[in-house]
Amino acid sequence: MNIESQKLSQSIDGLFNPCSVALVGASSTTTKWGFAYARQLLAGASRRRIHLINQRGETILGQQSYTSLRSLPETPELAVICVPAPHVRQAINEALAIGTRYLVCITAGFGEIGEEGRRQQNELRDRIRSAGARLVGPNCVGLYDAAANLECTAFWKLAPGDIGIISQSGSVVVDLGARLPRENLGISRAVSLGNQADLTVEEFVEAFALDPNTRVIVAYVEEFRDGRRMFEAIERARQLGKEVVLVAPRAGEAVRRSVTSHTGSMISNEDVLASLCADLDVVRVRGMGDLFLALRCLSAPVRALGRRVAVIADGGGFATLGTDSVVEEGLEVPAFSPALRAKLTEIMLPGSGASNPIDYVGALDLASFKPVISAIASSGEVDAILLNGAYNDAAGAAPESEAAVATDIRETCQKHGIGLSVATMITTEPAMVAFAADRVPVCDFPAEAARLLALGRIRKAKRQLPKIETTAAYLGETHYISSRDALAAGGIAFTRAIHARDSDEAAIAANKIGYPVVLKALGILHKSDSGAVVLEINDEATLRAKVETLTGQLNPTGFSVEEMIVERDGVELLIGGLRDPAFGPTVVVAAGGTKTEIWRDRVVALAPVSEGAARRMLSSLRIAPLFAGFRGRPPLDLSDVTKAVAAISRFISDHHNVLEAEINPLIVGPTRCIAVDARIVAAR
Amino acid sequence: MNIESQKLSQSIDGLFNPCSVALVGASSTTTKWGFAYARQLLAGASRRRIHLINQRGETILGQQSYTSLRSLPETPELAVICVPAPHVRQAINEALAIGTRYLVCITAGFGEIGEEGRRQQNELRDRIRSAGARLVGPNCVGLYDAAANLECTAFWKLAPGDIGIISQSGSVVVDLGARLPRENLGISRAVSLGNQADLTVEEFVEAFALDPNTRVIVAYVEEFRDGRRMFEAIERARQLGKEVVLVAPRAGEAVRRSVTSHTGSMISNEDVLASLCADLDVVRVRGMGDLFLALRCLSAPVRALGRRVAVIADGGGFATLGTDSVVEEGLEVPAFSPALRAKLTEIMLPGSGASNPIDYVGALDLASFKPVISAIASSGEVDAILLNGAYNDAAGAAPESEAAVATDIRETCQKHGIGLSVATMITTEPAMVAFAADRVPVCDFPAEAARLLALGRIRKAKRQLPKIETTAAYLGETHYISSRDALAAGGIAFTRAIHARDSDEAAIAANKIGYPVVLKALGILHKSDSGAVVLEINDEATLRAKVETLTGQLNPTGFSVEEMIVERDGVELLIGGLRDPAFGPTVVVAAGGTKTEIWRDRVVALAPVSEGAARRMLSSLRIAPLFAGFRGRPPLDLSDVTKAVAAISRFISDHHNVLEAEINPLIVGPTRCIAVDARIVAAR
Repeated sequence: MNIESQKLSQSIDGLFNPCSVALVGASSTTTKWGFAYARQLLAGASRRRIHLINQRGETILGQQSYTSLRSLPETPELAVICVPAPHVRQAINEALAIGTRYLVCITAGFGEIGEEGRRQQNELRDRIRSAGARLVGPNCVGLYDAAANLECTAFWKLAPGDIGIISQSGSVVVDLGARLPRENLGISRAVSLGNQADLTVEEFVEAFALDPNTRVIVAYVEEFRDGRRMFEAIERARQLGKEVVLVAPRAGEAVRRSVTSHTGSMISNEDVLASLCADLDVVRVRGMGDLFLALRCLSAPVRALGRRVAVIADGGGFATLGTDSVVEEGLEVPAFSPALRAKLTEIMLPGSGASNPIDYVGALDLASFKPVISAIASSGEVDAILLNGAYNDAAGAAPESEAAVATDIRETCQKHGIGLSVATMITTEPAMVAFAADRVPVCDFPAEAARLLALGRIRKAKRQLPKIETTAAYLGETHYISSRDALAAGGIAFTRAIHARDSDEAAIAANKIGYPVVLKALGILHKSDSGAVVLEINDEATLRAKVETLTGQLNPTGFSVEEMIVERDGVELLIGGLRDPAFGPTVVVAAGGTKTEIWRDRVVALAPVSEGAARRMLSSLRIAPLFAGFRGRPPLDLSDVTKAVAAISRFISDHHNVLEAEINPLIVGPTRCIAVDARIVAAR
Repeated sequence: MNIESQKLSQSIDGLFNPCSVALVGASSTTTKWGFAYARQLLAGASRRRIHLINQRGETILGQQSYTSLRSLPETPELAVICVPAPHVRQAINEALAIGTRYLVCITAGFGEIGEEGRRQQNELRDRIRSAGARLVGPNCVGLYDAAANLECTAFWKLAPGDIGIISQSGSVVVDLGARLPRENLGISRAVSLGNQADLTVEEFVEAFALDPNTRVIVAYVEEFRDGRRMFEAIERARQLGKEVVLVAPRAGEAVRRSVTSHTGSMISNEDVLASLCADLDVVRVRGMGDLFLALRCLSAPVRALGRRVAVIADGGGFATLGTDSVVEEGLEVPAFSPALRAKLTEIMLPGSGASNPIDYVGALDLASFKPVISAIASSGEVDAILLNGAYNDAAGAAPESEAAVATDIRETCQKHGIGLSVATMITTEPAMVAFAADRVPVCDFPAEAARLLALGRIRKAKRQLPKIETTAAYLGETHYISSRDALAAGGIAFTRAIHARDSDEAAIAANKIGYPVVLKALGILHKSDSGAVVLEINDEATLRAKVETLTGQLNPTGFSVEEMIVERDGVELLIGGLRDPAFGPTVVVAAGGTKTEIWRDRVVALAPVSEGAARRMLSSLRIAPLFAGFRGRPPLDLSDVTKAVAAISRFISDHHNVLEAEINPLIVGPTRCIAVDARIVAAR
């Protein structure tokens, strides 16, 4: 983090522990928000001066209010604006006039209601910024800091803890706050972002990363505005030792209808988000249920480093159900080595299977679990253990001894650095109660226990996001021939193509290239779909006839006569660069060429990518087995493909006005990779 | 149901209410199973005579035991065998000798431990069947009937109710029993199937369907042995008004390792199972968490008939999260009609969006929900409502009035036949407590509430499973040429092909067919993978050279010279018949021809299928858009494809010894559909 942004974050930090606060719009009417905020703010009155502003100078909760900010005896460090929308502007003007540094605007009715609201909001933001102040909101529900005893909230029910919440939705932060204590979790800090007119989610992630009381940062985000900065902030927070959980619902037509209805924002491109979270190994959940599973695992005494899970089940059915759940979460249930199986067979009760999953049905002696767990945990063959079943001692052992077995299991896992999660339908059994008391996650069902292991896996801050250096504008033309030339100049091989204005020129071109040729009518947006591409023309008569037909049908601006490529053992790809509104230049590799939409086998990354990263993208496609020489076919040479992907990724990241650059299809054969079509879309 | 099977089911029925029971292996040692079963059986002693058999004639729980079955004063209707494995044979012999009709064998150590165990188990089964008796188990945990007060169980914790459980896993039924009361659910009947040496899951589904006390049948199945009978039983049960929930974990390598380790059984083919459940609209869950969601919805006062959901959220974040969850479950969040939107705008509080999802944030007046819900429920535009949020009255309304709103909402949904589920992180709010008291499902998170709506959708018993009429053996050869001929005889068009023994015969064949031709070396199992297929041979010299090369490389049994098919705008399919060990003849349609394994775009159905069913299969492929004329290409004629699929499905169902019949690829063009390869695998 550079000094500039550290300064900024520290300056945001002051928001959470102001020396003095003024509440503009305080009220003595108990059903009004202005009353609720006054009550909560006054709860921290021993730590700071709280000034209540009420037009009529009412006495509120026993405290005399002021009639305006100007009549205050001091400049409040923070002003909370809770007046009707038409009075917000005046309140903010007064606050800025007396030198207030931080503003929290609860009031709604700005950017989220339409164009005029957005205009007013931008105007307020500009005024605030030029006064050197910062704004949270508008249209937010406030903020909270446990250590500073700051409750700039209405009626949130909050318990102190080590989780910091940054939320684009007010209701989410309110209900999360109410729910966390039930899960024995609490909040260090929380902020409701509202419309993010000034302060944004990225800035709060940066600030929360520096807060010593925050161990886990939870960010609820529906809209990424500066996606790169967001992920850079997440990476930095992780480098500072913080856990970060991104709660981001998936985009979709109906979801978007919801989002536009309430924040005027667009959910970010799901493909980019999913690819980026996978690439950077960021914990991303889509809903509250998974968030709580992640939080429970992040607070557990033992966590998994990898994906290999031993399933130990109290009965065969639970072995099957547990294994299905683990596999469903993308984790593995590896077969044990012969050595481990031999060891287990020796120590396990007769009749138990020593494979993974372990079916330890009818375990009448819970103490016999100890050496089994120890053998597995110390084997180096798994990263975590999932226990599935009730683990009640059928023979009726004393509750203390059942609880002691749980303690043993947990200590063994801790000793060997092995993750542990437990699923049982009977959470009241002594062993289960003992696990829960030690914060070992005890879930109702293996599906939850497995997901929890997957979400709670220990992640490492990975790598730098690709940097975009100073970029130039693309000044070339964007018609077909220029697009080909521009991408070919980047080092991508194209089929031979000659421009032709009529059938005579086409015939000359074809003779130069050699039959069969491809004829493309130019100036048509979707050439393939419009029938503007004729493949495999074998003679001049046919070529001339096709030129005449297309001229009549499509009125093209010209023609391109091209070499006909046949790669019987080849694969068609689409490669392209796309400028995402939130994440900037991205690069896409997809299977299927013209059938891309059917297969949806695609991977996205932030541009630019190196050739190594391009190769990783290719190998994560579902069609990757085809590259290796599928079913007796010769393997494909990918070196030119990775060069082409890297080149198109550089093309879009190097030219700030290019919205789209696409090669479709790129035909990949055993010995060559050749582009047969190109498209560039650029802003002027 | 025919009279024969009804008789059989009624005869199984007697198992659950025997006049007298003998427990062989009863014990006075409290840590032994023989004690636990005695204790539970004696709990029903007022309803039937319970005889305890103990070798030493101990007094057990105050009751004098007998030393053998032969010394009993009467023939017990049911004998429960709970002696060590080596003594089971004698106990069963004695029970049969005195005329006992039902046997439950708790003891393990038979089919599940290997070949010798299976042999012993089969021998016992045969003896029992020839004596006209029936057996549950061995290797089971017993059975239960609430109405008959029969607890042939060890230490299950059971509450009476209307759910019947049939389980292939003993531990699953035990833990389910313990868990159900926490969900306010109870059991009518339960049976642990064990190894199913005699009585099978299908027979119990048939029997439970006739039990007046059972409303919902839950079957936990890892292995389908007679899959057709199972689904026929499910259909019949549904026609009798029963709800059926199939709990079937998914097959997979690691899961299978678990299953073979404990029951010696193979999990059935997941593809067949998934396709069949989708086709017959059977509620199938993979784990216990989803089972409980399904059970809660099946007990709810209101359920959805279809998939259209209105999401009504207490805040924008909850609108987004709720919508994401609904869409994730394959349900729809349809946009409201302009008329409904206008109506809602009129009655909703200002600032609320009248689209779907509805963001009713800051609803300070809970009563205002009533007309909103009423307008939506009566619109005919949705099948269910998902409420997401806390619905606490920010203005602090009386708890009674909050509860009254919940009652209103529930009654409105009931009146209009609309499903309702609720998600809230704050389940303690008065409205939530009121919903729960009325059995409206109140979930912690919208993901659960949405899944519950999807699982609990009202299903109709659909259609008859395809019947297999008397079948003949396939007596033809199974080499390539015969396979083509046999399938061609079924009405499937093939490319022209001529058999050739050497290059001279190949040259003559090629001249008859006309170049270009395809050359296939015969007698090689995977022709394509082994390089035994040479495409597009354009002249005799090349043909002769290829024949010589292949003769040297592969030592083929002969050659096939074939017409070369090029369909540039065509689609390659695989169609095939496969005999499934559990489900019998099935038919598969898959995309990709030779790339089938890559795309895994496939659909399976029980064979035989009609042409109509074949068309439905085709249209459910992901590549279906290609059939309609994708991106300007001509549409494909599917009538010959559906004929071919129906023909191959008849071929496998008509020939009981055919294990596999495959055409790959079937090339589908705009005007024709032609098979270019065939394979038949048959048992002799």
